[in-house]
Amino acid sequence: MGANLVRRLMRDGHEAVVFDVSPRAVAALASEGAVGIGSVAEFAATLESPRVVWLMIPAGLTGRVVDEVAAVLEPGDIIIDGGNSNYRDDVRRAAKLKESGIRYVDVGTSGGVFGLERGYCLMVGGPDEALEIIEPILKTIAPGRGDIPRTPGREGDYAPEELGYLHCGPSGAGHYVKMVHNGIEYGIMAALAEGLNILDNADAGIRESEHSAEVAPLEEPEFYQFTIDTPKVAELWRRGSVISSWLLDLTAAALEANPTLDGLAGRVSDSGEGRWTIKAAVDTGVPVPVLAASLFERFASRGEDHYANQLLSAMRLQFGGHQELPAGDVLEAGSRKADSDTA
Amino acid sequence: MGANLVRRLMRDGHEAVVFDVSPRAVAALASEGAVGIGSVAEFAATLESPRVVWLMIPAGLTGRVVDEVAAVLEPGDIIIDGGNSNYRDDVRRAAKLKESGIRYVDVGTSGGVFGLERGYCLMVGGPDEALEIIEPILKTIAPGRGDIPRTPGREGDYAPEELGYLHCGPSGAGHYVKMVHNGIEYGIMAALAEGLNILDNADAGIRESEHSAEVAPLEEPEFYQFTIDTPKVAELWRRGSVISSWLLDLTAAALEANPTLDGLAGRVSDSGEGRWTIKAAVDTGVPVPVLAASLFERFASRGEDHYANQLLSAMRLQFGGHQELPAGDVLEAGSRKADSDTA
Amino acid sequence: MGANLVRRLMRDGHEAVVFDVSPRAVAALASEGAVGIGSVAEFAATLESPRVVWLMIPAGLTGRVVDEVAAVLEPGDIIIDGGNSNYRDDVRRAAKLKESGIRYVDVGTSGGVFGLERGYCLMVGGPDEALEIIEPILKTIAPGRGDIPRTPGREGDYAPEELGYLHCGPSGAGHYVKMVHNGIEYGIMAALAEGLNILDNADAGIRESEHSAEVAPLEEPEFYQFTIDTPKVAELWRRGSVISSWLLDLTAAALEANPTLDGLAGRVSDSGEGRWTIKAAVDTGVPVPVLAASLFERFASRGEDHYANQLLSAMRLQFGGHQELPAGDVLEAGSRKADSDTA
Amino acid sequence: MGANLVRRLMRDGHEAVVFDVSPRAVAALASEGAVGIGSVAEFAATLESPRVVWLMIPAGLTGRVVDEVAAVLEPGDIIIDGGNSNYRDDVRRAAKLKESGIRYVDVGTSGGVFGLERGYCLMVGGPDEALEIIEPILKTIAPGRGDIPRTPGREGDYAPEELGYLHCGPSGAGHYVKMVHNGIEYGIMAALAEGLNILDNADAGIRESEHSAEVAPLEEPEFYQFTIDTPKVAELWRRGSVISSWLLDLTAAALEANPTLDGLAGRVSDSGEGRWTIKAAVDTGVPVPVLAASLFERFASRGEDHYANQLLSAMRLQFGGHQELPAGDVLEAGSRKADSDTA
Repeated sequence: MGANLVRRLMRDGHEAVVFDVSPRAVAALASEGAVGIGSVAEFAATLESPRVVWLMIPAGLTGRVVDEVAAVLEPGDIIIDGGNSNYRDDVRRAAKLKESGIRYVDVGTSGGVFGLERGYCLMVGGPDEALEIIEPILKTIAPGRGDIPRTPGREGDYAPEELGYLHCGPSGAGHYVKMVHNGIEYGIMAALAEGLNILDNADAGIRESEHSAEVAPLEEPEFYQFTIDTPKVAELWRRGSVISSWLLDLTAAALEANPTLDGLAGRVSDSGEGRWTIKAAVDTGVPVPVLAASLFERFASRGEDHYANQLLSAMRLQFGGHQELPAGDVLEAGSRKADSDTA
Repeated sequence: MGANLVRRLMRDGHEAVVFDVSPRAVAALASEGAVGIGSVAEFAATLESPRVVWLMIPAGLTGRVVDEVAAVLEPGDIIIDGGNSNYRDDVRRAAKLKESGIRYVDVGTSGGVFGLERGYCLMVGGPDEALEIIEPILKTIAPGRGDIPRTPGREGDYAPEELGYLHCGPSGAGHYVKMVHNGIEYGIMAALAEGLNILDNADAGIRESEHSAEVAPLEEPEFYQFTIDTPKVAELWRRGSVISSWLLDLTAAALEANPTLDGLAGRVSDSGEGRWTIKAAVDTGVPVPVLAASLFERFASRGEDHYANQLLSAMRLQFGGHQELPAGDVLEAGSRKADSDTA
Repeated sequence: MGANLVRRLMRDGHEAVVFDVSPRAVAALASEGAVGIGSVAEFAATLESPRVVWLMIPAGLTGRVVDEVAAVLEPGDIIIDGGNSNYRDDVRRAAKLKESGIRYVDVGTSGGVFGLERGYCLMVGGPDEALEIIEPILKTIAPGRGDIPRTPGREGDYAPEELGYLHCGPSGAGHYVKMVHNGIEYGIMAALAEGLNILDNADAGIRESEHSAEVAPLEEPEFYQFTIDTPKVAELWRRGSVISSWLLDLTAAALEANPTLDGLAGRVSDSGEGRWTIKAAVDTGVPVPVLAASLFERFASRGEDHYANQLLSAMRLQFGGHQELPAGDVLEAGSRKADSDTA
Repeated sequence: MGANLVRRLMRDGHEAVVFDVSPRAVAALASEGAVGIGSVAEFAATLESPRVVWLMIPAGLTGRVVDEVAAVLEPGDIIIDGGNSNYRDDVRRAAKLKESGIRYVDVGTSGGVFGLERGYCLMVGGPDEALEIIEPILKTIAPGRGDIPRTPGREGDYAPEELGYLHCGPSGAGHYVKMVHNGIEYGIMAALAEGLNILDNADAGIRESEHSAEVAPLEEPEFYQFTIDTPKVAELWRRGSVISSWLLDLTAAALEANPTLDGLAGRVSDSGEGRWTIKAAVDTGVPVPVLAASLFERFASRGEDHYANQLLSAMRLQFGGHQELPAGDVLEAGSRKADSDTA
């Protein structure tokens, strides 16, 4: 992603000095016009004051690299963390760097693998005077106005947020807003996935009739006789529906590429942002049942609900003598089996 | 909404015969080129066989009107219900009409107040032979390909779902898919609203210091020192972010029009579709924690959690002698107050 | 369970006429003092008017048997359904039987396998005049006052609810209250299971250090260094804690019998009541996020979230090129793996 | 609560030296046989080595008092924190005190206002050698075996957990287990409250008929014709039902004392433990949808969902022109109003 940011900057006339632990990565960008350097220390000599160093580094390593870079910079220089850091680290780092006169800017960056062409949505935190200096960079990396219809009521010059970047507040505010963005992303993804799962099971009444030995029959199977083509529905909803969205576009693309989702085990990873979002909501007393449920679904998809589920089965065995149903075909047998809690 | 459908049809060269209980509504469309009639019975004489009658009627009245219309039609004619009916009514009505040879088609219609220009996303259920007859109507009402980028991997002629309409299955399938669409809509709306609420409370640490007498202080107030401009953030996210969506566009528009949301009590209505979605998921054994939570949030927004909350306070009073905090300023005092459960 | 009800009645001096499709079941109770009969029809001759016939039958068959029994009874006789029927069936059956003068009483029965000794909690719906007749039966089957401390403020004669039975309202009210009872049961079970699951993972920081190659390390592993003996904790909480409860007793018993929960797959069944509870809440607009979440957890435990989870993985693959983590050891690797959503 | 602990200790023959910032509190206990002192410093002279100092202090002040007490103690002495501290503070304090040879023990204490008679459930964390010294104190404060039936399978001498105290692990483990206990408590309370709220609305079909002008009628009002006496039902469930529990006892007592819950606004407080539980689950990747939902309900009860709800109304206004319903009588009108999302 860092490489694509550099490409987007150079396309727009910026000069870039690049470093990576992989010399090949440096060489690749150098061949496209960047100035490659061989160590962090060379930033000091290669860049002019006030220097602006943009870091794109896995979250676990950012702290160490910030220290290394800060050691070679001077008061007035700027370090930008464009990675997925926890905003709390930004707050701490900014306070620490302030002592040596170095300005720290955190940039939450959204756009995924499409960002090179589409531009990146930039959520920025840091001191005003640093923002003034780096604004040309932000403007280049952001999507600009593109062909998105202007929000009714907005007039005159385009505001930064209409060009795809925003100074959200002091250090940490950028990653805070990005964190919440990702929390929302989890919720939207879950809403789409749950809904399509309902559609995928709209044939429960048909399957039911094939499984006459089921313990407890589906009530009113006559109302669940639909075999829905979910890839077509996802494509359909892209056109004129209220839920049209980029995540729906991706869902349609995923289902076009792999209509039966072959090879996917359904073990859904999660990154720090989703977790931090819930913790921030808990700290500040904001109810987020939807966002939290979307995170917990991911945990459960990886089997983290196993012990709890075993306990539930163990309790049922105790109070009603209920045996677990044999596993059989999980997906076939699951939803329609129900035995009686005579408790 | 019915009037806009007629307009969209006439623009594209269709002839329309229109009836409404309001003669003025009929006259308005007649002045734009439609043939106005004065009673349901006139459909029989005015339309040619096979007649196609499209109903746009509040859900509570649809059953009665379907009966009235069916009484004047002949075998082979088609009744389309384009309203927000429960798909179960479609299943029942289709079975009943089949006896008299009349074909029944249900169309879930999404597009809101923007549909006249933007086109309506059409989710259709009914028998194949009826679909063939009405396809030109569907094609006109749907958005068409518009300027939406084609999903990677799709080639050749555009499929119906790429033009904005889809035959989802037998009678009821259209409204079933529309029902789930609305269920998803609730989830996406809730994800956006919850996330923006977190941002709106990112200043909890600032407010905290103003309320030194709070019972239990916010932990780590230094990490909640951000005053976020949520209208700007909503606008920003429209550009290049992963959560860009039509509902986000509407959120940005709403916040542009009324940045402080003045005059809104936050009593959120819900329609049948959201409820039916959860009931269908429960019937078919599909876990939908996110969609259900989004529905329950709306119930709670209207005070329907009141008795449960009183009970919780009453229990706390019993086991720990905990008194309820005085109401005071709900929004100011709420999130940061916490007294100790010594239980 | 029916047999135990009969035993409890006979112990208290009631005479019982019993029938079952299994002659051996009839013979067993006959050997203990009951009058066994060979067909439903014999109830008419064997019992005196007003006859009281108590049915304990799997929910799916109740309707047919009610019809059979009603056919041999006379006006003024009483049919009691003590099984786990949907209260809606009660409402329908009571209305139908009323035409022939037969009174219908629904009894929700809680007590599980311990009921013979402990007594059964009885939630009763039906007409007043029927309740008067059957009250002696209810009094015998119910637990009576036992050694449960009287609720402060209650004085004088014990009310029926203090003896373990209650006339909740007209036909259907008994099973309605029982339905909600089971809905609550799901919620309590889930609360216990989720909490113990947290305790079971309190060693995440220890396991973490053993898995140094994890993609994203647990934050602050120093705070998750506890190896908690959950069977002992469950036993402990039975003594003086706020959450002491019969379901906790059962949990402690289950963990004493099988501390590692060997042989339990964690595929948790559900019965109709849990589902009906959510549907009733949705119909009446009551927010029940906790009760619904506890039902959905059970669905997910049986793999019914599979398609939704596959979709989430498919979306992640689209927007960020994120590959699913290999399954490996689900329980070991799951909770601590997190890769970065650079989106 | 501290005073009651002292009383329970003295009743069982322990000698107690007591200090409180309020001289009257000290005098009260002194009059009952305790040795009152006038400052923390006096603990050193009054107690014999190894000294055991048990602190019962509001969480916000514990850190300071621990420091004060530690300053007057010697290596080998023991400080017990019996308050509601965050287990993270225990981990930090124990590490710090270890340097000066003082042992730190954290005790999570459950029992509420009934503990003096009933005994307190004690969850204990700390080093083995400290536990040996304080075990006689724990044994006295705990409930002992009481009249609780022994868990099947347990034989021989009673284990500590059967007497109501348990050494859960190293420092912090006691408050960790107590934290989760409270998290479970929230879930059980919510399950009871939500369920009783459903019962309280079982008359929705009756109220419906009185409000004929409702926008969207309740579907199938014939199934919601029950006027349930919830105080009686709570009392009933105490007898023989699966959900019998101490929290149900309290609910019954609360409803007996105040059947209409007059004077309760339903603004439910929460303490730190419920929040910490969710954050620990998020950190360790444990899905807790039920426990989280029960916390978020409390946040919402205090109006913390207000901004989110306003946003939802604002979005609905945008996409469908839907106006908010007038507030009217929130509790009467709420659940049954639904207007149509034609979107």
